Amino acid sequence: MLTNGKNSCKFVIQNNDKIMINKIEVSWKGQMLFESVAPEGTVIIDAAEEAGGQGKGLRPKALMLTSLAGCTAMDVASLLKKMRAEVGNFKIEVEANLTEEHPKVYDKVKVIYKFYGEDFKKDKIEKAVNLSVESYCGVMEMFRKFAEVTTEIQYFDK
Amino acid sequence: MLTNGKNSCKFVIQNNDKIMINKIEVSWKGQMLFESVAPEGTVIIDAAEEAGGQGKGLRPKALMLTSLAGCTAMDVASLLKKMRAEVGNFKIEVEANLTEEHPKVYDKVKVIYKFYGEDFKKDKIEKAVNLSVESYCGVMEMFRKFAEVTTEIQYFDK
Repeated sequence: MLTNGKNSCKFVIQNNDKIMINKIEVSWKGQMLFESVAPEGTVIIDAAEEAGGQGKGLRPKALMLTSLAGCTAMDVASLLKKMRAEVGNFKIEVEANLTEEHPKVYDKVKVIYKFYGEDFKKDKIEKAVNLSVESYCGVMEMFRKFAEVTTEIQYFDK
Repeated sequence: MLTNGKNSCKFVIQNNDKIMINKIEVSWKGQMLFESVAPEGTVIIDAAEEAGGQGKGLRPKALMLTSLAGCTAMDVASLLKKMRAEVGNFKIEVEANLTEEHPKVYDKVKVIYKFYGEDFKKDKIEKAVNLSVESYCGVMEMFRKFAEVTTEIQYFDK
């Protein structure tokens, strides 16, 4: 068994197949406050006051949207560099609709890629985004199994 | 339109139906470093050094596991209180297998509910967990669409 203490992935060699495992632990801190520990760091989670919490942390469900944006953002950063299609800056906004009845799920998700700069190499930027959306971003792939995901690219001056 | 500035949910009244929207924005901070902003707070995301990052933040994909554990943890905390089945403490551990080929997704997820204390009201505790898993936890419902999810309950002395 090969482990990398700096990474949340534990590599287990079994029958010559590499298995990658991610692991986190959430601990109760009273009321609706929780601390989530991953090898790389901690997130504090809490409910809103109207839901019995104290509003001292992040809402857990919306962390899925952070996961989605973060995953695709890393693909795009990496691909833009490899393709030599650098931009001044970029942001990814995720807006998701939550169903009304329990269990409440995200059924429609919009991912907006916003690029800031000038002289954009738009063909390459769009290729980078499409590669992430269609082939590389695992979170995007997981989201497509339960939600309708739409994407949009927007360009802004620096 | 009714908005609650303290919550990540924006309520939009359309045709007498209530629509709830969650929104986050991720901004690039250079290399593979990103900052995710939700109304309740911020998360710093980074890749491992071997993946081009600096190891200064959380891995984005594993935030889905934090979302899962946090969502069901809140249900359990709330239900145990309502059922008067308090425990000394509890933790939720999530262990997930990531597939090897791109796009890498979680295909097997194990959720372990660990209760610490004494004189456990086990029937009520197990009912609380089952209600979350089967009916209340939206993240659990979303995960079931792409992964095989198993759950386990463990009891420990205080």
